[in-house]
Amino acid sequence: MKEITIQSPLDMHLHLRDEEMLKLVAPLTAETFAGAVIMPNLVPPVDNLDSLHAYKERITAAQGEHKFTPYMAMFFRDYTEAELAAAKEHMIGIKLYPAGATTNSEAGVKAIDAVEPVFKMMEEMEIPLMVHGETHGFVMDREKEFLASYEYLAKKFPKLQITMEHITTADAVDLMGRYENLRATVTLQHLIITLDDVAGGLLNPHLFCKPIAKRPEDREALLQAALAANPSLMFGSDSAPHPLSKKECCGCAAGVFTAPLALPRLAQLFDDHGKLDNLQNFISGNAQRLYGLTPLEKKVTLKKTPSQVPAAYEGFGQHVVPMHAGEELPWSVTEIN
Amino acid sequence: MKEITIQSPLDMHLHLRDEEMLKLVAPLTAETFAGAVIMPNLVPPVDNLDSLHAYKERITAAQGEHKFTPYMAMFFRDYTEAELAAAKEHMIGIKLYPAGATTNSEAGVKAIDAVEPVFKMMEEMEIPLMVHGETHGFVMDREKEFLASYEYLAKKFPKLQITMEHITTADAVDLMGRYENLRATVTLQHLIITLDDVAGGLLNPHLFCKPIAKRPEDREALLQAALAANPSLMFGSDSAPHPLSKKECCGCAAGVFTAPLALPRLAQLFDDHGKLDNLQNFISGNAQRLYGLTPLEKKVTLKKTPSQVPAAYEGFGQHVVPMHAGEELPWSVTEIN
Repeated sequence: MKEITIQSPLDMHLHLRDEEMLKLVAPLTAETFAGAVIMPNLVPPVDNLDSLHAYKERITAAQGEHKFTPYMAMFFRDYTEAELAAAKEHMIGIKLYPAGATTNSEAGVKAIDAVEPVFKMMEEMEIPLMVHGETHGFVMDREKEFLASYEYLAKKFPKLQITMEHITTADAVDLMGRYENLRATVTLQHLIITLDDVAGGLLNPHLFCKPIAKRPEDREALLQAALAANPSLMFGSDSAPHPLSKKECCGCAAGVFTAPLALPRLAQLFDDHGKLDNLQNFISGNAQRLYGLTPLEKKVTLKKTPSQVPAAYEGFGQHVVPMHAGEELPWSVTEIN
Repeated sequence: MKEITIQSPLDMHLHLRDEEMLKLVAPLTAETFAGAVIMPNLVPPVDNLDSLHAYKERITAAQGEHKFTPYMAMFFRDYTEAELAAAKEHMIGIKLYPAGATTNSEAGVKAIDAVEPVFKMMEEMEIPLMVHGETHGFVMDREKEFLASYEYLAKKFPKLQITMEHITTADAVDLMGRYENLRATVTLQHLIITLDDVAGGLLNPHLFCKPIAKRPEDREALLQAALAANPSLMFGSDSAPHPLSKKECCGCAAGVFTAPLALPRLAQLFDDHGKLDNLQNFISGNAQRLYGLTPLEKKVTLKKTPSQVPAAYEGFGQHVVPMHAGEELPWSVTEIN
């Protein structure tokens, strides 16, 4: 039976939420991943050391006995040098959501201009920057329009490590290769789906996420980069649980929940394309090198034997529908050490 | 107070459904429109004279006392000459759903090849053809990919009157002007929304329709053609009621319900752009000329005084959420004669 053992798989972009939802989903990632970058977009956001410590404690309590490191990210704001210095050793980087960026890339850069002193300090202190790179333009153009801002930052701050989070376009894949300090994460779903799967048949709220899935040629470029374990590309699930009531409703929340099935589904994808050997670097090696991480030792064995994706994950009063709900996957996690 | 009186407004593409839903929605169109082209996509489809007569009777019974003509369309299939001859005087045309068309336009034309004898008879008998022009390709490309099939038909059957139903792209607007026998309908929503309104913020099932709303430049081209009362363009609401349970759900049905508010919303749109004078031709004149119709006389007066769109239309056990549900529109229908 075909199998592969992954050393210390890492999820470089993860939403664990808080309270009861955190209790439900944290163990689902902690079971099979050695570590994950935890997004700070709680309400209020994690933008100070106290809330970071407190959130990390809640995560550690929720993850159970699993070997797992939550790599904490802080929410970008106009931090002082003292704040950054104090926070540096407790976090993996700072996540920027460009609320001020507008529809065209020039205005996007201008908005980013205003916080350049923070970027400068981050560059000097070697604190990585993670960016949700979308403008407020037309939904299919938002990422492409933001690329000029990425390029501006990459050139202006050549030692600032910049991660283009959850890229979705062929243009972003192309840009990622052009600057040494510009790397990217990509989700599971963006390797598999296009806008067709969200809105081409019936509307599918469970595959609705931001950035929205794009065109077939975009998916193909992302997939080829992942299968090749492109050295600038890391796996980041962006797994984002929402209660069912926020998904099957009028005005559905954005986010796909993939954490519990990410490893077997990725094994399937890489195996289907004869690239299983590249999975280790895509799911851990690249991130270790790019972020200088030494994750917990954890060996996850995957075999080509069927596993069943539950229709929903339930507990703590929560009910979350995963991607591939109710489907059988050809690969399974069979051993974790 | 600004006002306009429309003579015999026509909706050249309408879904009335059947049974209880028909009873709810038929009067909502019949009240303000003088006539409408009734889509034949029931289950089973309206594809013989018996079912056409029976459906027309059910519509007439449901529409109430309103002055209103249902112009019946038949569902395209491999009709014999005798069938076409018998049906001709009872219908306005035949509606083709290209189930066999595939992802590229060449294959689309090939699929259409197989039924060319029917087109030939329709051309000779002067029976108009109405087409849902989408391939099975990527959702944003389906209409554009089908345009080659329209062009092929327009050239091969120069006397066949072809209506490109519910066009959504700038490319279709451009094509419509290039062949004398190629005309089009456009919906209300495609003059107003883009994909942004469906999936750019939260997912909005009530604005999800097929063809899906496209890019801003597409909406702009459609709007300019409508405002100019382009002589090849007719209003066809494609108003498509679905019960709430089929809209706010996992896997939502496609269709926007606009019939009851179409006239005041169109008056608003044309007035906003200083083109009220062109509304008559867009909403009736062009259709009368292109189809050779002499509709029932009906005068509908619209004034710039606010009207309220209900949160839902209810009755006969049905519950349908319209576009602009719960919003106030600046224009109202004030008189119908």
